[in-house]
Amino acid sequence: MTECKAILVMGAGDATGGAIAKRFAREGYVACVARRHADKLTPLVDEITAAGGTARAFGCDARVEEQVLSLFETIEREIGPLEVVVFNIGANVQFSITETTERVYRKVWEMAALAGFLTGREAARVMLPRKRGSIIFTGATASLRGRAKFSAFASAKFALRALAQSMARELGPQGIHVAHPIIDGAIDTAFIRETFPELYQLKEQDGILNPEHIAETYWQIHCQPRDCWVHEMDLRPWLETF
Amino acid sequence: MTECKAILVMGAGDATGGAIAKRFAREGYVACVARRHADKLTPLVDEITAAGGTARAFGCDARVEEQVLSLFETIEREIGPLEVVVFNIGANVQFSITETTERVYRKVWEMAALAGFLTGREAARVMLPRKRGSIIFTGATASLRGRAKFSAFASAKFALRALAQSMARELGPQGIHVAHPIIDGAIDTAFIRETFPELYQLKEQDGILNPEHIAETYWQIHCQPRDCWVHEMDLRPWLETF
Amino acid sequence: MTECKAILVMGAGDATGGAIAKRFAREGYVACVARRHADKLTPLVDEITAAGGTARAFGCDARVEEQVLSLFETIEREIGPLEVVVFNIGANVQFSITETTERVYRKVWEMAALAGFLTGREAARVMLPRKRGSIIFTGATASLRGRAKFSAFASAKFALRALAQSMARELGPQGIHVAHPIIDGAIDTAFIRETFPELYQLKEQDGILNPEHIAETYWQIHCQPRDCWVHEMDLRPWLETF
Amino acid sequence: MTECKAILVMGAGDATGGAIAKRFAREGYVACVARRHADKLTPLVDEITAAGGTARAFGCDARVEEQVLSLFETIEREIGPLEVVVFNIGANVQFSITETTERVYRKVWEMAALAGFLTGREAARVMLPRKRGSIIFTGATASLRGRAKFSAFASAKFALRALAQSMARELGPQGIHVAHPIIDGAIDTAFIRETFPELYQLKEQDGILNPEHIAETYWQIHCQPRDCWVHEMDLRPWLETF
Repeated sequence: MTECKAILVMGAGDATGGAIAKRFAREGYVACVARRHADKLTPLVDEITAAGGTARAFGCDARVEEQVLSLFETIEREIGPLEVVVFNIGANVQFSITETTERVYRKVWEMAALAGFLTGREAARVMLPRKRGSIIFTGATASLRGRAKFSAFASAKFALRALAQSMARELGPQGIHVAHPIIDGAIDTAFIRETFPELYQLKEQDGILNPEHIAETYWQIHCQPRDCWVHEMDLRPWLETF
Repeated sequence: MTECKAILVMGAGDATGGAIAKRFAREGYVACVARRHADKLTPLVDEITAAGGTARAFGCDARVEEQVLSLFETIEREIGPLEVVVFNIGANVQFSITETTERVYRKVWEMAALAGFLTGREAARVMLPRKRGSIIFTGATASLRGRAKFSAFASAKFALRALAQSMARELGPQGIHVAHPIIDGAIDTAFIRETFPELYQLKEQDGILNPEHIAETYWQIHCQPRDCWVHEMDLRPWLETF
Repeated sequence: MTECKAILVMGAGDATGGAIAKRFAREGYVACVARRHADKLTPLVDEITAAGGTARAFGCDARVEEQVLSLFETIEREIGPLEVVVFNIGANVQFSITETTERVYRKVWEMAALAGFLTGREAARVMLPRKRGSIIFTGATASLRGRAKFSAFASAKFALRALAQSMARELGPQGIHVAHPIIDGAIDTAFIRETFPELYQLKEQDGILNPEHIAETYWQIHCQPRDCWVHEMDLRPWLETF
Repeated sequence: MTECKAILVMGAGDATGGAIAKRFAREGYVACVARRHADKLTPLVDEITAAGGTARAFGCDARVEEQVLSLFETIEREIGPLEVVVFNIGANVQFSITETTERVYRKVWEMAALAGFLTGREAARVMLPRKRGSIIFTGATASLRGRAKFSAFASAKFALRALAQSMARELGPQGIHVAHPIIDGAIDTAFIRETFPELYQLKEQDGILNPEHIAETYWQIHCQPRDCWVHEMDLRPWLETF
């Protein structure tokens, strides 16, 4: 049983996390998918299984240290060595500075940065003795630029980028590949379809990101030989202004 | 009494915060200086008073929302309109990623980012109706670059930079000047003198930053006419590599 | 004859340019390889041919407008539509500012920036009517940071980056993918082997970049669907500090 | 005669260069102002003289090495040591990539980058033996970001920034302060008034930069003690989006 290679996707609730899990499952990785409520992961697990892959759903509040520790411990013990850990939790909110409550500022950081720290640190802990593995943090435009109404979200995404960069510099020479792809544009998700229907119409002309293509990039990142590692790359649709 | 112009220096415990308070007091501002334990501020208040200025010491844990709210309320009611608010709390720690506890990661963020958010938001609230004022956040090298052992500190400083940038873009057109000077180098403090004595020897050849010169720059930033505002600038000694 | 798809590698003199040509030839592209003296390209053309691919060597001084125009005209007329154009000419020199002659400053810019402009502009001209194609400019660490003794080289590489960024923003919505991968580290070349033998010894532990792996990344960039394009990415060996 | 301190403003043709010359002349510097046609400098020289200052006009094509060498030689011999050298030549043009001629791409670089290199290098040469002096290069938004139609201009401004950064890192530890302020916004000039009248109307509400305020910043930069030097800072009107 422990001969399996595993990937953990923390934040497999959305289209991107799911697509990444499916992409790696197709290559024989056991896709360990985690989100707060495990039962919502059933369709994803079923889809992977139906396609001949293996998947395991985990309920985990990634902001809670003991839950993250327990998750890593369980996977490493029951499933196999984690070769890839993807942190894919976002928390996009928009409030003017005076309307940003302490609670919002803190929650957004807990979801997008603290949870990333806990996930990344535990990934480092299991990978360091093996001197191999990939840790991928999903970034956004707000990782690079602040903006009106983005005080909370940009603060959290900047923090995650600092974490990815610090970990890359620390863990690279230990054989662990830390990458920070930056998704700059709307992704084809139910959220975008329902909330921004005009934006969603760009899909017809490839104006929003296909989660499968993001997943393909994550797969390529993981496959890079260690003499040629990417740390940061921006991904956007051809129509996106930047 | 309310005819006074006030400056608040949040984090007036170190040399830089003190020098800023003294610089503005020299120009007739009431220097409101705050740190966790107000009694440690007595020498600073005495020094400002002896030089003919006015200063008020406040005990305030800047991570605690109600304390920050109360501080702003007291100053605006008892002293005068806050024309300048400086956030100057740092939290430089160095730990490898696997040795960074959840507690450390959280504390550093609370001190360097959450407290900055609370301070900056309250400053915006009192300044917006007046459509004027300067809010200055002190940055560091770690605001721009992650580094081995800097996961916690860089995360917090990146977050503060995102806050400053988001607030600048939001509040600039409202007449409020938000700036983020980046101090890149050791500052002439008791901490550096005692902890890094060899580094401190560079003082003889101006190799470490003089807090008074940093304070002069903050004064210049505040004095800039609104057609010519700086948002970000790096400050370092001539000998510093970068 | 015009049914062929072509790639042009401008600056196919070194290991990287050659590897890129070979990678695309393997996929059925006619590899048009160009450098100042065409005869030096014979081994590369022979190697591609022996592997079952098709290659054409061109002598072209990429700094000379009419030669670049003539090259594009010839390829489009005799071979087929250029789907990919790679600009891969470097000019790494190191001189202190006072030892940098006007001639050196100008030559380095002509090789690394002006030639890139001419190549990129002609690529845009042939690709725009077809509304497709990839233009890839090879960047370096000096594209992002100046450094002592790098006045000439960094100036030229910064200029090339500005070109790539401006073209990406202008041509992306026209269907043309402009990318700027940044190679941050020594590449496995004869130059490194002979000039920096200790550095070259890192090859044994994958400490220098394998040109074939760079070429693989260029291939992946070209294959990206248009909803998910990278513009900038850094590539470096795991042992490289950054 | 050689007891005078001199400043050279290369590119004193516009409002900014003129304001800088006047600001330093007010402090007792001999303002050496240079542009291609010296006769156009007469009003500026007269204005400085009328205000009690000293100014000298020089005709100099800053793209031509021998003219730059001769200019520095003349000033150092006839007037006094150059304490400050400001490079202030711009060349803002906008052309789509396919409409950018080789001539335009080259000219813009010669004006904004090559001339900056020649000026900066000669400044370094006269200042290095004295181990003091300030060299200030004027940057623009296009120094930081490429943009559609900005291939030529951004390439040149990026190059100038690389030069400033490389020189700062090389010359700082030699006692020479190299700075690169970035002007992000329209400046109050005849050009803006005539070409963009609506933009110019923002002047009434301080929406465009006042050259005198830019000049004040340059003066402050030069006055910074060497333990507290800025290298890069952005300057923009409060209403400017960024």
